[in-house]
Amino acid sequence: MVDATPTPVMVCGVGGKMGRATASAVVRRDGFELIPTALGKGRAGVVDVDGVAVTVIDVDAEDGEAVLKKAMETYPGLIVVDYTLPESVNANGELYVKCGVPFVMGTTGGDRDALLREVKASGNYAVIAPQMGKQVVAFQAAMKLMAEQFPGAFAGYTLTVTESHQSSKKDTSGTAKAIVASFNDLGCDFDVSQIELVRDVENQTGRMGVPEEHLLGHAFHTYRLTSADGTVSFEFQHNVCGRSIYAEGTVDAVGFLKRKVDAKDSKTLYDMIDVLKEGAMN
Amino acid sequence: MVDATPTPVMVCGVGGKMGRATASAVVRRDGFELIPTALGKGRAGVVDVDGVAVTVIDVDAEDGEAVLKKAMETYPGLIVVDYTLPESVNANGELYVKCGVPFVMGTTGGDRDALLREVKASGNYAVIAPQMGKQVVAFQAAMKLMAEQFPGAFAGYTLTVTESHQSSKKDTSGTAKAIVASFNDLGCDFDVSQIELVRDVENQTGRMGVPEEHLLGHAFHTYRLTSADGTVSFEFQHNVCGRSIYAEGTVDAVGFLKRKVDAKDSKTLYDMIDVLKEGAMN
Repeated sequence: MVDATPTPVMVCGVGGKMGRATASAVVRRDGFELIPTALGKGRAGVVDVDGVAVTVIDVDAEDGEAVLKKAMETYPGLIVVDYTLPESVNANGELYVKCGVPFVMGTTGGDRDALLREVKASGNYAVIAPQMGKQVVAFQAAMKLMAEQFPGAFAGYTLTVTESHQSSKKDTSGTAKAIVASFNDLGCDFDVSQIELVRDVENQTGRMGVPEEHLLGHAFHTYRLTSADGTVSFEFQHNVCGRSIYAEGTVDAVGFLKRKVDAKDSKTLYDMIDVLKEGAMN
Repeated sequence: MVDATPTPVMVCGVGGKMGRATASAVVRRDGFELIPTALGKGRAGVVDVDGVAVTVIDVDAEDGEAVLKKAMETYPGLIVVDYTLPESVNANGELYVKCGVPFVMGTTGGDRDALLREVKASGNYAVIAPQMGKQVVAFQAAMKLMAEQFPGAFAGYTLTVTESHQSSKKDTSGTAKAIVASFNDLGCDFDVSQIELVRDVENQTGRMGVPEEHLLGHAFHTYRLTSADGTVSFEFQHNVCGRSIYAEGTVDAVGFLKRKVDAKDSKTLYDMIDVLKEGAMN
């Protein structure tokens, strides 16, 4: 499908770090086109993304619905990516549904149950996922599959979990919590309060091996299982620097959603597991 | 079932390292009893296993079938474990089938297709598996599940594989080869000839972290996946010292087989995946 028209993508929240990284990934990826308009809240202006000047329309000052509908007319097949703020998640979801534009919601927070319920009921095409790092999602799902298939396989093993994030992140990694739940199903007896949170530069650069240039944006996780007699150990690490894994996963989700829209698939609401499952068909 | 009669276990090959480790695990495990007789080939004698004197009957000199049948009468519910030699695998399998004794075949090698075919056709209860390390099997299966569910999820990632074994092991780890196959299905383009074989003491103790006392018996594996732009890496390690993981997994297999025999299960031939799947029921 090399000759096909590129898929037009609007990135709402392009003024933020994640939105900008995603917009940049859209520009770089063959088969996708970043459109020069985006919705924002409280901040109008122009953002340059690798040479594409994107005009951000402030939805507090202008009619977001009108802007979106015009963009949909100008760019048939438009797909919206949302990397805005938790407080905008539900309002933006409603707007996309109202306009009937397919969207990928990468923004976390908001009332997730309400979001999923309303989008599903609407029949609007969407990918909604709290974690867009495709390979991290795959690993997390693999541990869950192992726990479902082989419950108790690691009974008697001791688990230790260490995670390092930028010091501005105060809470425990949600990914680590989800993976700990799987290890507990595998027979470990571990409480999430036992997860070691590394937030100081010395341990990050030294023990964890975080590159200095990524101290302000990284997600390093180490899980270690040790047998009761100490003769066997398993270690799993997933170490992410910067935002490219999330940006690339988001563009994958856009491409996936485009195919579903074109195929008029009867299922309309998806998550990253759905995107991953179709890997062989890409 | 704390008050139940212990399951009697004969360990053929008790004179060898793996047989002896398994016999010792049988002695230590509640609910199991090591019987004081075993079959051996070319070497008769008495082996002391944690205080249990096991008389080894040389099948080249005496009638193995008669010895086995007598043991089955003396110890109702007997289960045989086989850790002998590749050249004995098929003959021993035939003997166990002829006597109708359930068995766990931990010995590798021999004509596997013939073994599996004949045991399956006989309807004799057996667990036959080339790898008894339950947790290693679980990990290997988890990577296979991930590859089946999410083909291509790691496309563009570079894989490196390093494995360390005792210097007497000349060939590449079979487990590493199997796991590499899954990573290839996940989108890596890796040839098993690229697996780095570490067989020298300096790299084993230094880089790989093998404890000195296990230089003569260990299996350390490291798989590392790195994204094209270098910002993301995943690392998986499974490091085994000595034989206890295999010995314990074998006793788990014996317990599993005992339950299948007692339940008169319609399926009679199993592998370690079956043992693992029943984890929740143990």
